[in-house]
Amino acid sequence: MISGDTIVAAATPLGFSGVAVIRVSGPLAFKISRKITHQNKTNDRVATLRTLFNLDGEKLDQGILTCFASPASYTGEDTLEVSSHGNPTIIDNIISTVCLLGARLAEPGEFTYRAFINGKMDLVQAEGVASLIRSKTLEGVREQQKIIEGQLSAEINKIRKTLIDLVSTLEYQMDISEEDLNMGVQISAQKVLKGLQKKALEMSKTFRMGKMLNLGVTVVITGPPNVGKSSLLNSLCGDNKAIVSPLPGTTRDVISAELILEGVPLVFFDTAGIRKTKNRVEKEGVSRALIQRKQADIIISVSDNPLEEIDHVGDQLCVFVLNKADLHSEPAPKTVIHISCKNKTGIKELLLEIKNKLQIHPISSDASLLSTPRQQLSIKLCAEHLDRADELFTETGVELELLSLELRGGVEALDVLLGKTTPDDIINNIFNSLCVGK
Amino acid sequence: MISGDTIVAAATPLGFSGVAVIRVSGPLAFKISRKITHQNKTNDRVATLRTLFNLDGEKLDQGILTCFASPASYTGEDTLEVSSHGNPTIIDNIISTVCLLGARLAEPGEFTYRAFINGKMDLVQAEGVASLIRSKTLEGVREQQKIIEGQLSAEINKIRKTLIDLVSTLEYQMDISEEDLNMGVQISAQKVLKGLQKKALEMSKTFRMGKMLNLGVTVVITGPPNVGKSSLLNSLCGDNKAIVSPLPGTTRDVISAELILEGVPLVFFDTAGIRKTKNRVEKEGVSRALIQRKQADIIISVSDNPLEEIDHVGDQLCVFVLNKADLHSEPAPKTVIHISCKNKTGIKELLLEIKNKLQIHPISSDASLLSTPRQQLSIKLCAEHLDRADELFTETGVELELLSLELRGGVEALDVLLGKTTPDDIINNIFNSLCVGK
Repeated sequence: MISGDTIVAAATPLGFSGVAVIRVSGPLAFKISRKITHQNKTNDRVATLRTLFNLDGEKLDQGILTCFASPASYTGEDTLEVSSHGNPTIIDNIISTVCLLGARLAEPGEFTYRAFINGKMDLVQAEGVASLIRSKTLEGVREQQKIIEGQLSAEINKIRKTLIDLVSTLEYQMDISEEDLNMGVQISAQKVLKGLQKKALEMSKTFRMGKMLNLGVTVVITGPPNVGKSSLLNSLCGDNKAIVSPLPGTTRDVISAELILEGVPLVFFDTAGIRKTKNRVEKEGVSRALIQRKQADIIISVSDNPLEEIDHVGDQLCVFVLNKADLHSEPAPKTVIHISCKNKTGIKELLLEIKNKLQIHPISSDASLLSTPRQQLSIKLCAEHLDRADELFTETGVELELLSLELRGGVEALDVLLGKTTPDDIINNIFNSLCVGK
Repeated sequence: MISGDTIVAAATPLGFSGVAVIRVSGPLAFKISRKITHQNKTNDRVATLRTLFNLDGEKLDQGILTCFASPASYTGEDTLEVSSHGNPTIIDNIISTVCLLGARLAEPGEFTYRAFINGKMDLVQAEGVASLIRSKTLEGVREQQKIIEGQLSAEINKIRKTLIDLVSTLEYQMDISEEDLNMGVQISAQKVLKGLQKKALEMSKTFRMGKMLNLGVTVVITGPPNVGKSSLLNSLCGDNKAIVSPLPGTTRDVISAELILEGVPLVFFDTAGIRKTKNRVEKEGVSRALIQRKQADIIISVSDNPLEEIDHVGDQLCVFVLNKADLHSEPAPKTVIHISCKNKTGIKELLLEIKNKLQIHPISSDASLLSTPRQQLSIKLCAEHLDRADELFTETGVELELLSLELRGGVEALDVLLGKTTPDDIINNIFNSLCVGK
C-alpha cells in the first residue's frame, strides 16, 4: 500500500438503504469537498447539507458532508465523510467523481493502514479493528475494544520497556568492566527475567480464550448413520435461545447452526454418518464428513449403543455422547454423556462438558487477551528468548554477550508484534483482512 | 405510524463494514445522546468522537456522534446520528440501549414520514425518496432528485393554484349575481380551463418514461424451442458494455439479465420454448413462460423459420425476430428483424426497435416526470374533472354550481397527490415501501 495520495471508498455495505457513507482521506480531501459541492467553505467537523455535483455540473445527490482536519481524524490525514442516499448508482457516481478529482480507490483496510502509518495506532490495535468488525458476540466486541484502546499494547509495551531497561543495565556493565557481573546485579537481573518469563507465559495462556472469542469454535457432530446426529443438532440449537442464525449448508451433506456459549460463538456441523459404503453419493458425504472432522476444534462423537466400541478420534478434543438414553437400561462408562433428543434430557450436561473441555470461562476486564495467531506467535517467540536467556545463568556466572543477544531477540519479537519492525508482507496481510472503506 | 415519540433504526445495510449509521429522532434524542456518552454537551452539528456505554456503564463502542437540532434536521425533530463500527452485534447493542432509554424501533420509512408530518416535504417528494433509493441508473436518480427537490410538486402546485383561483372567481360571480356568467368572464374561464387541461394531459404523458426510469422494463423472449432464445439473451447482454449484473434465475426455467438503454433498466427473461407437450417438467416450464409473458412490458418473439406463421401475442408490445439469418436466403416480412446470434448481426437494430416501441427518449432537465402509478392516477382523476368541467360550457351558457363542483374535484385530486388530504392507508403504503432507517 502506498501512502501520501488521496483515497476514497464506501465505508458502508453495498445495498439500498437510507444512508451510505463515503470516505475520502489524503491531501486532496478538502479540495475535492469544495469541487463537488461548488462551495468554498469546509467547516471542520460541522455536518453540512450540500448538493453534490459531477464534473459536468450535473447533480449527483444531496448529502451531509463532514470534514475532519489532520491530525484529528481516523487516518490522521485530512478526511471528508459524505453521507449520501444509500443507492449503489449514487455511490458509484460520487466515487467516480472523487476519483476524477485526483483520488484513487482505496484498497481493503487502507484507511486503518494510514492510521497506523501516521502513528494513530500500533499493529496490535489495527488487528483489533479488523477483529472488532468481525466479532459475533458482545464479549468478543468488548475484548477487541480493549485492544483498540491500547490495553493490550500497554501490557506489551510494559514488558518491552522492562526488557530494554534490563539490556541497558547489562550492556552498561559490559562497557565499564571486563569482568563478570557482580553478584548483586546478577541476582537482580535474574529476578527481573523470571518476572518477565511469568508475564509472557500468562499472556500466552490468554490466547486460548481470546482466539475462541475472536474466531469462534467449530464443533463437529460425528458418528454412525441413524444415531440421531441431526436430532442432536436440533436439540442443541432449538432449545437454546442464544441461537444467532442457522447458517446455509456449506456442503450438501454438512448442515450447521450457531449457538453462543459465554460469548464464544460455537458453530455446530452435522455431518453424514460415517460407515463403509459402495454408494458413490454416500461415499462423497462420508469423505466430506472426515475432512470436516479434521478441521474441528472439538468433536461430539454420538452413538446409540452403550455396548459399542467408542469412536476414537486421535488427539482432538472429543465429547462422547450416548443418544436414545430413554431406550437403554445398561450402565455406560462415566466418560459418556447420556442424552435423549426425544425427551430433551442431557443437553445441558453436554453443553457444560463442551464448556469444560474448551476451558471457556468468564473474562475479567483487567487483562486483555491475545486474539490472533500472529500475536500468540510473537509472544511465544519472545518467551523462548527469555527462557534461553534464563538458561544462561549458571553457577559459574553468565556469559553477558549471549545474554544480551537473547534479550534483544525478545525485544525484537515485541517490536514485530507492535508493528515497529514488521515485514511488509505481514503488515499487508493484516490490513487486507479489513474491509474496503476501513 | 405514530409521531411524537422517539424512534431509532440503523440507516445503513446490515453487514460487516467500516462504518454503520444509527439514527435517533424525537424529543428524547439529545437526552439519549447525553446518557449513552456520559457527556453533557451536545454541540449542534459538530461531529464528535465519543465512547458509547450501555445502562450498566459497560463500553459498547467508540463512535462519531452528531446532533441535529429541530427543525434543521431531516425529520424536522431533534435528531442524533451515531457512526459506529459496522458490526451487527455492536449495532444491536447500541439500538437496544437507545430503546431502554425511551426510544422505540422505527418502522420502515418512519423517518421520512416524520419529515412529511413536520412539513419538510410533501407526499410526492416522499415518494421521490423511496424511488431514489431504488433507482438503478443515473438518469433515474436524477429524475427522483428533481422530484425530491420539489420540481414536480411545484408544477402540481402551479396547476392547483390556477385551479383554485378559477374556482374563487367563479364562486365570487355566483355570490354577487343570480344570473349567468357574463361573456367576458366565461370566455376567460374557458381559456384558463383549456390551458389546465393541456398541462394535465402533458403531465400524464410523462408517466410512460417516468415509470420506465423508475421501475424498469420487463422484456420477455418467447418462441418455439431451439430457435436460439438463450443465444439471443447472451448476444444482447454479452455484446453490450452497459450490463449491470446477471440476476439470479427467478424460476428454474426463466433466466434473466439486465441491460441499460438510455437510463432505462431493461430486464430480459429467457423463457422455456413454448409448445404442446406431455412431459410434466416441460409442461411446468411452458406454463411459467406463459405467466412471464403476461407480465412483460414488451415481448421479443423469436423464430428461425421465415415461412412460419408469426406468434401473435394479443395487445402487448411485441418485436418479431428471425434468428439464424445466416441460414436463410428467403425474404421475410419487413416487420421482422433479421438477426444472427452466431454472426452477431442485427442486435443493434433489435435494440433500436425496442427503444422505438417503448418510446424511450432522452429526458430534458426542465420538466419532471410522473413516476409512480399513484401520481399518474391522481393526475388522470384531475384531468377527468377538468374534461367534465369543460363539457359544461355550452352555447346557452354554463351551470356555475356544477362547474364549481368539477373544478373542486380537480383540486381534491391534486390535494390527495400532494398528501394534503390523502387517506391513511395510502400514506402508510408509501412510507412502508421505504427501508427501515429512512
